[in-house]
Amino acid sequence: MRFTRHTDYALRVLMFLGLKSPGELATIKEISDRYGISENHLMKVVHRLGRNGLIETIRGRQGGIRLARSPADIGIGDVVRRCEDDMRLVECFDPKTNKCRIAACCTLPMVLDEALAAFMAVLDRFTLADLLKSRQGLVSVLMPDLERGA
Amino acid sequence: MRFTRHTDYALRVLMFLGLKSPGELATIKEISDRYGISENHLMKVVHRLGRNGLIETIRGRQGGIRLARSPADIGIGDVVRRCEDDMRLVECFDPKTNKCRIAACCTLPMVLDEALAAFMAVLDRFTLADLLKSRQGLVSVLMPDLERGA
Repeated sequence: MRFTRHTDYALRVLMFLGLKSPGELATIKEISDRYGISENHLMKVVHRLGRNGLIETIRGRQGGIRLARSPADIGIGDVVRRCEDDMRLVECFDPKTNKCRIAACCTLPMVLDEALAAFMAVLDRFTLADLLKSRQGLVSVLMPDLERGA
Repeated sequence: MRFTRHTDYALRVLMFLGLKSPGELATIKEISDRYGISENHLMKVVHRLGRNGLIETIRGRQGGIRLARSPADIGIGDVVRRCEDDMRLVECFDPKTNKCRIAACCTLPMVLDEALAAFMAVLDRFTLADLLKSRQGLVSVLMPDLERGA
């Protein structure tokens, strides 16, 4: 049971952007360099975060990306719901591709639905702002220039 | 976020065995036929369930497999913990392979741990006996001969 790499990277991108001053832009290259993640991967993640209204892109030579809302308004549950499009724990969660023959009478999906709801309820209690409370540690790894006052 | 196919099939095997009379044996071929799952896949699942003490194997010509405990003593959370060996939601959950540079100062794992605990707590409230409450429907699909009184 894993998140897709997409969701994992989306959370990292949002944390990076949340460390910037409000309105300050970051570039995909910068995030790629600091995390050691390929730009190609990040472009897809950023595109999707933009489509979902979580970040905004400013075009042009001085362009870049930034959060579209304040960190306190970005719920972790919301990010996961928007990025993790495969929450089909077992085969029958997708009626289109299901081949399990007992799907019509099986009560396992009800149990798993309840477990998933409990999982998401915890994530819904946290926002990006909560993940940024360890700001100092994050800045020292991701923005060492900033820490040195550059 | 999906269970492995292994966990999905393990739950199906246990449900099948739970429909049998106490002590009655099933064969892998029988389970394979009724669910339409390859015997090869099922052999691996059955081997692991046996190793984990959830089912027992009787060897010989009249041999087969059966539950090693009563359905009420087989917790769904326990089955998932034993079968789903990859609960590493994000990369840093495995320190051996982690490459995320902020792992040492990031609070996301704490949030995800709490969410996972809530997920498992729900599963821990249910046993195989709960999944067998829809017995009649399950029997009609998986053991139609039994239903017809054969």
